[in-house]
Amino acid sequence: MSGTIDLTDRVLYRFWHKENLRFSDTDMIGHVNNVAFAALLESGRTAYTHGGHFPRFPAGCQVVMARVEIDYRMELHWPNAVDIGTSLLRVGNSSFMLGQGIFRGADCVTTGRTVLVLIDKATRRSAPLPADYRAALLREITDPPVPATPVP
Amino acid sequence: MSGTIDLTDRVLYRFWHKENLRFSDTDMIGHVNNVAFAALLESGRTAYTHGGHFPRFPAGCQVVMARVEIDYRMELHWPNAVDIGTSLLRVGNSSFMLGQGIFRGADCVTTGRTVLVLIDKATRRSAPLPADYRAALLREITDPPVPATPVP
Amino acid sequence: MSGTIDLTDRVLYRFWHKENLRFSDTDMIGHVNNVAFAALLESGRTAYTHGGHFPRFPAGCQVVMARVEIDYRMELHWPNAVDIGTSLLRVGNSSFMLGQGIFRGADCVTTGRTVLVLIDKATRRSAPLPADYRAALLREITDPPVPATPVP
Amino acid sequence: MSGTIDLTDRVLYRFWHKENLRFSDTDMIGHVNNVAFAALLESGRTAYTHGGHFPRFPAGCQVVMARVEIDYRMELHWPNAVDIGTSLLRVGNSSFMLGQGIFRGADCVTTGRTVLVLIDKATRRSAPLPADYRAALLREITDPPVPATPVP
Repeated sequence: MSGTIDLTDRVLYRFWHKENLRFSDTDMIGHVNNVAFAALLESGRTAYTHGGHFPRFPAGCQVVMARVEIDYRMELHWPNAVDIGTSLLRVGNSSFMLGQGIFRGADCVTTGRTVLVLIDKATRRSAPLPADYRAALLREITDPPVPATPVP
Repeated sequence: MSGTIDLTDRVLYRFWHKENLRFSDTDMIGHVNNVAFAALLESGRTAYTHGGHFPRFPAGCQVVMARVEIDYRMELHWPNAVDIGTSLLRVGNSSFMLGQGIFRGADCVTTGRTVLVLIDKATRRSAPLPADYRAALLREITDPPVPATPVP
Repeated sequence: MSGTIDLTDRVLYRFWHKENLRFSDTDMIGHVNNVAFAALLESGRTAYTHGGHFPRFPAGCQVVMARVEIDYRMELHWPNAVDIGTSLLRVGNSSFMLGQGIFRGADCVTTGRTVLVLIDKATRRSAPLPADYRAALLREITDPPVPATPVP
Repeated sequence: MSGTIDLTDRVLYRFWHKENLRFSDTDMIGHVNNVAFAALLESGRTAYTHGGHFPRFPAGCQVVMARVEIDYRMELHWPNAVDIGTSLLRVGNSSFMLGQGIFRGADCVTTGRTVLVLIDKATRRSAPLPADYRAALLREITDPPVPATPVP
């Protein structure tokens, strides 16, 4: 289903986060290292899930990553800044999937899909999404936030 | 095809690399951060591709990442050390795929698949795998190295 | 001499650089890890030395770090953004010293002093600062840039 | 006082920790980035302070960094592994200082001094070293551990 979603299209994203590239993000190949992209995606993702609009995690619960897929589409070089777009793509029974794109101006440099699982903080085991939380997540798909940053 | 390969099985891996976890690999959740796993997988991967057994990249070429998939199977905590297994899974026309597992003792903590694309160093564009290099890669699958570290 | 300079005073800095804190900058103590501060200081420093105003490194040369001192004055937590101020403090024969402050609003969280040495790119050995480059650096002290970001 | 201590001398160190360099430790200059050295020093330091021999932090307390000084003596390149030596240099009223050296074979690549402050976990304010803890730290100087790793 999410296979038909074009993660390289800026129009998909409602939540935007801007990040500078740091010199330490580069590697000996001379470009931004792939590990830095994982940090950038996480930075955009946590800005979204911990920002004001996203439904608060149920009491006693938090989310941890179950899976990430990252497609590297272009090399990126320092110095630079990027826009990171994030949208909720799917909601499961105990997890949900976010889609992301890292853009440098008009170019989509990298895209990613992340599956986050709700876990009980104490037992560290996955927990089913409570019905009201699941409903709030589904509204996030059908009624997403107004873009925090206007789509450039 | 690689879907039938069990990346959590230590027997799959012929090349092993050991890494300490660093305190700075942790995050405010209290466990090892997902970005650190990307660094660990890259460390094991480059130890393999730049070690003595793996076929040398063709002259004027290098490899860059096209895609990575990481499955987080267990939380990991500091202090700890991990064994990272890497094996060549598939060879394409201008790319190849590596499979990896991060193990803490008997437990498979994380698995990953990485697609690496051969590029021309000067033009930064993908280059078809030269026939002899492709043949050498295929031999790496059928005739893998003796494990550098005995499988624990 | 630089001992009398108050690195916690925003008025000292003419060059400003803004950085978001990333979730991966945190550690299991729950605050921003000390290693992240080294990355932030480097990010502010390289933005200054590679920006438009700072004298270009002499042909065939680059700078590498010889020494850094970092004073951690306050704990910092995610999510947050910081302003990083950088100023040239001293010019030696083959090196120069930068002073920096990381600020969160009115609070000075961290200060640092970095000694950068000019080296020959080929030999990797330190090189004396050419007279005209040294003079340009000294003008940077007496005639600093207008702040890129107004001091808040 | 610690100025007369030669941090480049392997004989100074009783506690040794080995670390691989990771590919992501490199930067676009082609060498190991200065930020990675901060991570390596922290890794050696926390292995020492959280290992079996070092006195346990007093109940309700932890240590945080107050200051670090790092001297970069040689460039370091990937792939490589390093030995990190750590010794307790001084004990103050609410803090103590560690000295460290990062070695690649016989070469001392980097040295560092770190001041760690004892803080109350709840108030996050510095706490005086309890008398018995302070005495235990002083014994660590006069009666250091037998090297965990024989000095190479």
